[in-house]
Amino acid sequence: MALKKIGEQTIKFENPPSIVSTATIVGPKEGEGPLKNYFDLILEDDKWGQESWEKCESKMQEEAVKLAISKGNLSEQDIEYLFSGDLLNQITTSSYCARQLGVPYFGLYGACSTMSESLSLGAMIIDGGFADKVACATSSHFSTAERQYRYPLEFGTQRPFSAQWTVTGAGASILSSEGGGPYITYITTGKIIDPGIKDVNNMGAAMAPAAIDTISIHFKDTGHTPDDYDLIITGDLGHVGKDIVVDFMKEQGYDISKVYTDCGIKIFDSKKQDTHAGGSGCGCSAVVFNGYIYNEMLNGNLNKVLLISTGALHSPTMTQQGESIPGIAHAVTISNEK
Amino acid sequence: MALKKIGEQTIKFENPPSIVSTATIVGPKEGEGPLKNYFDLILEDDKWGQESWEKCESKMQEEAVKLAISKGNLSEQDIEYLFSGDLLNQITTSSYCARQLGVPYFGLYGACSTMSESLSLGAMIIDGGFADKVACATSSHFSTAERQYRYPLEFGTQRPFSAQWTVTGAGASILSSEGGGPYITYITTGKIIDPGIKDVNNMGAAMAPAAIDTISIHFKDTGHTPDDYDLIITGDLGHVGKDIVVDFMKEQGYDISKVYTDCGIKIFDSKKQDTHAGGSGCGCSAVVFNGYIYNEMLNGNLNKVLLISTGALHSPTMTQQGESIPGIAHAVTISNEK
Repeated sequence: MALKKIGEQTIKFENPPSIVSTATIVGPKEGEGPLKNYFDLILEDDKWGQESWEKCESKMQEEAVKLAISKGNLSEQDIEYLFSGDLLNQITTSSYCARQLGVPYFGLYGACSTMSESLSLGAMIIDGGFADKVACATSSHFSTAERQYRYPLEFGTQRPFSAQWTVTGAGASILSSEGGGPYITYITTGKIIDPGIKDVNNMGAAMAPAAIDTISIHFKDTGHTPDDYDLIITGDLGHVGKDIVVDFMKEQGYDISKVYTDCGIKIFDSKKQDTHAGGSGCGCSAVVFNGYIYNEMLNGNLNKVLLISTGALHSPTMTQQGESIPGIAHAVTISNEK
Repeated sequence: MALKKIGEQTIKFENPPSIVSTATIVGPKEGEGPLKNYFDLILEDDKWGQESWEKCESKMQEEAVKLAISKGNLSEQDIEYLFSGDLLNQITTSSYCARQLGVPYFGLYGACSTMSESLSLGAMIIDGGFADKVACATSSHFSTAERQYRYPLEFGTQRPFSAQWTVTGAGASILSSEGGGPYITYITTGKIIDPGIKDVNNMGAAMAPAAIDTISIHFKDTGHTPDDYDLIITGDLGHVGKDIVVDFMKEQGYDISKVYTDCGIKIFDSKKQDTHAGGSGCGCSAVVFNGYIYNEMLNGNLNKVLLISTGALHSPTMTQQGESIPGIAHAVTISNEK
């Protein structure tokens, strides 16, 4: 068996990479939510001076990476690889961000699981001795995602209560072979689980089984229990998906309810902000992790966190052809101790 | 500096992963081309019994991975990670392939650079001690790509001579920590280079500068020269891009003309098959590498090859907004000796 692998799907790092800096940029609505004090920059309008929402999203991702680099007292030349992806067709946000940065680039697509996908690959590349510094980033934008995946915004379609609100936000982490933490100590990489959901307004239910699968395997592989964590947080299951996870994890013998929540629930006050089941999008777990969680780890309020970004690999082309929506979830353990 | 890095953008593997098996599945047109004897399966029709071209493409990728696994005398349970991507929106081909295989999955998007992107990441994960066996795969399909990126096929638009023909094909490689080669000995990961091309029928010119950048850096980082290689082969630049590469490499002091060609030129007889500038698509370098090159390495006709899959990170959304097409190219050295 490979040296660093434990159990079925988990890696335990020999020299856990340190997350030396992070940055977050969010839209106006996210900047009015409960986590507003944790973000580096709150945009006043959702185009940020650009001609289109797509160009705004790309600028957000680019500026988030640059800000994370400068917060880590580094320069762009120090970054050896950029791992990034997003929701837009051909991950155009990330490609244009990478064009501006001029860094060797691995484009990823994991839908809303991209933050933990990029952290997983970035951490392996550092622990494997291939790089000393990498950037991991992702983003989403309400207006680019809605018109691509669902309906034209002008159409003003009514949203069912299971629908989620795509977060306008970009987050970036800089990983280093040296540094004082927080550290990425374990990763558990997910398989695709497809519960057969075809409703594009119920992504929480489409992704929850993948989260349950990955969290259960993480516990089995590592021997960890819910008590080992200060916080277990999924990416963007919202209220619908969160309830499914709690119930099914209980059936598997794990009561995670005391330490578990979801980034999509944390980012909005869903009643006051009319976001129904909660936030979603790659940017959701990106800004909650790089804003709220990272800062609460630095100040010691959180010491060991399991982040499970969740992706609904939804393609309008395939749902129009009658296919269901596959889900995936990647878990990353972030700890203040190696 | 990171242990295994040499120069600016290159990794030299300590324990070069072995490519223990490969598989290729191609469409009818590719099966009539000059490389027809190198492919494992040639489809008689381009839907392969499926309801849509998209579902056919996904079946092609899935069956290519399964065939590569069985040719390596392995089972699906032996594969620890699948690295794959494709051209379709939300890399839907790869996601549905991964769903059927049930293997931990990293979704990638590098457009037509995906074969070397997946080999690069797969090789690092093995050399880094994180896995013993991984699968790297990609695919494309003429009919899915044309209608997504350009025009409805029924429209019958005239194609300029700079246009290329998207390959219908899927290729897969199984990498292992053990085995007798061919080995992946070096990788040089590309940056995005954008020469400002906006013509969606001239991808060769959009990608050539990225190939030139990556090949030059590979030579500088490793000290290799064109004489060190039996074959230097780009992914899908076609005739237009190939000529640009030869000319500009000469300006940089490297005459690669004696050992250099392009997968898009090899796969079709462009005059007889009316494919204009040549083949393209993720499947192009995937089937040329996993079919032709791999088998010629096994029988000793080729011993050291530099594969540079090239990607045009073209998004219809962004070209409609006036943006140019960014290019990227990742180089992989495959050698019969460690």
